[in-house]
Amino acid sequence: MIPIVSIVGKSDSGKTTLIEKLLPELGRRGYRVATVKHDVHGFEVDREGKDSWRHKKAGAHTVVISSPLKVAVIRDVDHDADLPEIRNRYIRDVDLILTEGFKRNSQPKIEVSRKEKHLDLLCTREDNLLAIASDQPFEIGVPCLDINDAPGLVDLIEEKILRGKKRAKVFLRVNGVEIPLSPFLQESIKGTVRGMISSLKGCAAPQGVDIQILPD
Amino acid sequence: MIPIVSIVGKSDSGKTTLIEKLLPELGRRGYRVATVKHDVHGFEVDREGKDSWRHKKAGAHTVVISSPLKVAVIRDVDHDADLPEIRNRYIRDVDLILTEGFKRNSQPKIEVSRKEKHLDLLCTREDNLLAIASDQPFEIGVPCLDINDAPGLVDLIEEKILRGKKRAKVFLRVNGVEIPLSPFLQESIKGTVRGMISSLKGCAAPQGVDIQILPD
Repeated sequence: MIPIVSIVGKSDSGKTTLIEKLLPELGRRGYRVATVKHDVHGFEVDREGKDSWRHKKAGAHTVVISSPLKVAVIRDVDHDADLPEIRNRYIRDVDLILTEGFKRNSQPKIEVSRKEKHLDLLCTREDNLLAIASDQPFEIGVPCLDINDAPGLVDLIEEKILRGKKRAKVFLRVNGVEIPLSPFLQESIKGTVRGMISSLKGCAAPQGVDIQILPD
Repeated sequence: MIPIVSIVGKSDSGKTTLIEKLLPELGRRGYRVATVKHDVHGFEVDREGKDSWRHKKAGAHTVVISSPLKVAVIRDVDHDADLPEIRNRYIRDVDLILTEGFKRNSQPKIEVSRKEKHLDLLCTREDNLLAIASDQPFEIGVPCLDINDAPGLVDLIEEKILRGKKRAKVFLRVNGVEIPLSPFLQESIKGTVRGMISSLKGCAAPQGVDIQILPD
């Protein structure tokens, strides 16, 4: 499963700014990163009045904007997805997910704090706190790094989260939940699936394979 | 495979406006629709300066914005996807795809034309033209409906494109290409996959199942 680190903190503590510093540092070290942001207020599809915005407004369930360098997909959902669901459904082929917020979940976190805004922290050690990034010292038994020390924070993420991880090649999701697969099971499923489809037209040299079975 | 109808026409002919009329009419008849728009100029992730916009700007490969009613996923790609690839990779669980533009592909098309803007058409009968929607008459052997006649156009789409189609329940994509599956093959693959995973922890009552095998 793709590891998640959440950047958390009180309001206006500098979460987005820290993410803006971590992303280029992770990129320099060769990692491909996805970010996740929860938006309770809703968000706009591109700019008001643009074609895709008008499509969504007129009732399209899904809107795809395709361009040579990026693709956007906006779709209706019937519930507020939690982090595991977001990872399973929407994110593929990255090394790390950074989320802005999502304090309540159990994944490792980095808390941002600025003394100008708040003198105490949002999290305790029990919140699976990997580090604090702040312009003031905190002694709660987790590393407290300078708020601008992106290289130091990425060192920690590499050491504690990314070490030894490599992108898996076989994924299985059942009822929307990712099932962890050992390397043996990955090989076994790959063999069975390739055998099953080998005689179908167009499947002679299967590299990537996706199978989706919807609920009855 | 999900059927595609492309709304094509010369520049400023009213393609987006027609899509805005077709979407609610299709919705009233119970269809779930995706739209696709190609954007050569690039597009913005939400509004400039907003958090997700800043994530993308700072180098995130993928940005997910999650909310209770809709989810947006914006990701980097390394080439300009064609329509089959867009359908296979990004669109699921809708009855119909309407594209704005994409004249060059072979899928059925509706051409929009307004006499105020252009006196001749972009397409010929050979372009797989399902209908013309215009405020002037054209006699080229395909139905020519009034530019505001969304019910009439949707009647045609229902009759020629949607009749007898039902959402498939099992999908197989190999090397990124969707493999057509007969109802028999759908049942057969479902049985094999459920058998293969039935003894794994967490897979006792599989409803939806996704398997993804990445290229070696």
